[in-house]
Amino acid sequence: MFDKVVIVGVGLIGGSFALGLKAARAAGHIVGLERSSAALARARELGIVDAVSTSAQAALRGADLVLVAAPVAQTGAILANLTPWLEPHTIVTDAGSTKADVVRAARAALGERVGQFVPGHPIAGRETNGPDAALPDLYRGKKAVLTPLPENPAQSVERVAAAWRACGAIIHRLDPAEHDRVFAAVSHLPHLLAYALVDDIARKPHADLLFQYAASGFRDFTRIAGSSPEMWRDISLANRAALLGELDAYLAQLHGLRARLAAADGTALESVYANAQHARRAWIEAIEAAEQPLPPISGK
Amino acid sequence: MFDKVVIVGVGLIGGSFALGLKAARAAGHIVGLERSSAALARARELGIVDAVSTSAQAALRGADLVLVAAPVAQTGAILANLTPWLEPHTIVTDAGSTKADVVRAARAALGERVGQFVPGHPIAGRETNGPDAALPDLYRGKKAVLTPLPENPAQSVERVAAAWRACGAIIHRLDPAEHDRVFAAVSHLPHLLAYALVDDIARKPHADLLFQYAASGFRDFTRIAGSSPEMWRDISLANRAALLGELDAYLAQLHGLRARLAAADGTALESVYANAQHARRAWIEAIEAAEQPLPPISGK
Repeated sequence: MFDKVVIVGVGLIGGSFALGLKAARAAGHIVGLERSSAALARARELGIVDAVSTSAQAALRGADLVLVAAPVAQTGAILANLTPWLEPHTIVTDAGSTKADVVRAARAALGERVGQFVPGHPIAGRETNGPDAALPDLYRGKKAVLTPLPENPAQSVERVAAAWRACGAIIHRLDPAEHDRVFAAVSHLPHLLAYALVDDIARKPHADLLFQYAASGFRDFTRIAGSSPEMWRDISLANRAALLGELDAYLAQLHGLRARLAAADGTALESVYANAQHARRAWIEAIEAAEQPLPPISGK
Repeated sequence: MFDKVVIVGVGLIGGSFALGLKAARAAGHIVGLERSSAALARARELGIVDAVSTSAQAALRGADLVLVAAPVAQTGAILANLTPWLEPHTIVTDAGSTKADVVRAARAALGERVGQFVPGHPIAGRETNGPDAALPDLYRGKKAVLTPLPENPAQSVERVAAAWRACGAIIHRLDPAEHDRVFAAVSHLPHLLAYALVDDIARKPHADLLFQYAASGFRDFTRIAGSSPEMWRDISLANRAALLGELDAYLAQLHGLRARLAAADGTALESVYANAQHARRAWIEAIEAAEQPLPPISGK
């Protein structure tokens, strides 16, 4: 499917993409490119990539597909570094959690060649990171959202979609701004809320006593507060406008609940709780219905 | 250890207590008492209790220990129903998630005999409920918090502690008001926040689109919003003052974070996120260190 693929950032996300392509026999030759020579060496050792490079010029020679899998704040600098060596047929995509800012960075870096950049975001992850965390089936049955640009040839978008499909992902398409509003609500805001709660508790004088009695509900609620602070700082800033909108809506909701609680209005509280429980159950049932068992990825 | 134990409410919490006592051979005869004859029949069928009753008078004859395992708002009515039939040696305890209101209800119901009531709260649960959800090892390695009253004879407190220890629980003691402040922070507030988020999203016009892209982080963050709305309405109202205090502290925290986000202050955001990640890691490590492997409960 692809003769030569370049992975910029051979950690969990980029490494799993490489392993998924390899398992599907969809890539002839995979090159890892990044600044960290330790990560590159480890990725080579684990068989995630066939070759490694710290030079964009060398890595991009004859490349069909490039995946940029790095913190979103670095996307602009990475693309600026790649652009001089892009061949006319090379397609570049990314795996960033925000899209409007990535598109702005791509336009600035690629200029008239921005049509070669197809923005994407695979909805998958793990709590661990680095090449050792990479899995060939990380994307299996998961969504990969593409947010194509008007400048993207349909054929290029289809090539990127085919690469994610080879990794087992299900392709979705959104407008970049729509993407950012959706993920502000269902991902970025929950991360901010979980970080805020743990920080709030940790700063109380009796924090030790409180943590002593925190149990499984607290553990699950705050699991995402174990995520990388740098990565989530970048995502918060990159998607600031949409995140502020969602945060304001949530603050209004909390102030409303506070008033009901202060008034001891049990009926109103129960109505909010019951609506949430009902909506969450319907969501879980829809997920379970959509998760069809898939044949194993290997042995194709 | 106990000749006769009465379980008021033979669901997950009461049923697991009965099964734990049986597994430890700590109870001679266990009677289930509640209004729902279907739950009673099922508890009898599953061998959770040896006998069932819908009459407090009959059930309490010769009882050494009574556990009230019902929604906290019902505690007062249940205790009022039990009081006329309490024998002088009978000890009553409960499993309610709030304690100050339960103590108030107990004082009102038992009057001068309030010394016979030892308030308690086992920190364990499951997402399912009813007799079928009960497990003999639900409390194994978990905390059971007792909040004794000045009127409780030390010997009665020790008897209740021994019953929970027989179920594998680790005994902790708190003042009722302290208990309620602690659980407002680490349990009741997170429940309110999770319900609020799911309700907020479910009421948006594009809720279907949002739920479509919600993934595992959202699932864990909102797991507790799958809990019983009635139960959490009661807990919210019963612990209203402490919950309002925690909610106000959290709202102040969120308004502070909002200002930092609006100012694009990445350093301040990262500092909050990093403090939360660090505190959560330390907490998880402390939990793991405290969780010693225990010998199996059966075959004692």
